[in-house]
Amino acid sequence: MARQDRAIRTRRICLEAAAEVFDECGYEGASIAAILERAGLTRGALYFHFSSKEELARGVLAEAVTAEGVMPQPLKLQEWVDTALLLAYRLPREPVLSASIRLSADPRARGLLGTRWPDWIALGRDMIAEAKARGEVMPHVDPLVASRVTVASWTGVQLVSGSQADAPALVDDIVALFALLLPGIAVPAILTRLEVSAERPARLLAQAGPAAPAD
Amino acid sequence: MARQDRAIRTRRICLEAAAEVFDECGYEGASIAAILERAGLTRGALYFHFSSKEELARGVLAEAVTAEGVMPQPLKLQEWVDTALLLAYRLPREPVLSASIRLSADPRARGLLGTRWPDWIALGRDMIAEAKARGEVMPHVDPLVASRVTVASWTGVQLVSGSQADAPALVDDIVALFALLLPGIAVPAILTRLEVSAERPARLLAQAGPAAPAD
Repeated sequence: MARQDRAIRTRRICLEAAAEVFDECGYEGASIAAILERAGLTRGALYFHFSSKEELARGVLAEAVTAEGVMPQPLKLQEWVDTALLLAYRLPREPVLSASIRLSADPRARGLLGTRWPDWIALGRDMIAEAKARGEVMPHVDPLVASRVTVASWTGVQLVSGSQADAPALVDDIVALFALLLPGIAVPAILTRLEVSAERPARLLAQAGPAAPAD
Repeated sequence: MARQDRAIRTRRICLEAAAEVFDECGYEGASIAAILERAGLTRGALYFHFSSKEELARGVLAEAVTAEGVMPQPLKLQEWVDTALLLAYRLPREPVLSASIRLSADPRARGLLGTRWPDWIALGRDMIAEAKARGEVMPHVDPLVASRVTVASWTGVQLVSGSQADAPALVDDIVALFALLLPGIAVPAILTRLEVSAERPARLLAQAGPAAPAD
């Protein structure tokens, strides 16, 4: 393995180990020692990439906005739905994503590190605005407000579902969320043309082909 | 003041001081010393009512499900909307309510104390089910799923709005949430008869008459 590949891979191991520890222990509860143990790396290898716990947390957050698996669709609103479904499918499988929500939900970590919510809101706003320009969205819907409310609702569903022993899988609850939200956003003529299903994100990822290293 | 009234009032002071400290510092960060200082009570007065920080937190959570201000309406769905709007209006004014969300959003406190989400979900489920029996709700809507998704979305809006410097008041964002959700829940014929406005909760509370001691 070339030196550069090895460095990229080591950095990735650091981030994933840090994400797992942040996800389990929160920001305050996480220690560099626990992250090192999880990563199976020497202190020197980790410090080559990240100089502190804070920098590791920033690295985790930097990777937490992703549209991986989203593919161009005839309806722009479908791409927006796909982004939300893919995130719901991937989050329980990828500590970097769940850790970033846990860091954002913690007021202390949020004060120190900020959140990625503004980026998610901007991403959704742009997709809804483009869908609106194509006539897919009802005229009275404000893309920014619709995106902000949806990002917030998505986050709340993850938080509340994740805390209930008998709750369905996250992706099922996100499907239920969009089933309620879409009639308030999409023009009636396209409502039945949108696919909002728990099976869709896995299919999209399979179509996207053999995974690049997950991020 | 009779001895019993005084005891009730002292208990209330303890709970509100505890709620303020939990809301500011989180469960881990809160100390009995800080709560005592906030309450202006002696240790003995507090321990007469609550034997530990955990018991104080349980006392805060016990008061966090409230339909105060909700009045009978011609449409049952309006009562459900009113419950959500009133909570959004009251939360920034009542530390017991905001502290209970902070305690629930913190995985450690949640593991120890549980949450009130199941109670909120049951309350909403029963209201939506009654509205459905009256023909106000679309046939395909499952009251439990609709309530769970709405409670979760409400919580997410509070979490995300509360963290954004430029976000509107909570009640405005909850109005926006219901504007998006209701077309997916209510039958079209009653949609325009529902009042979903930021002014409504203050008006309802005023109509409810001179406040009993806030709970």
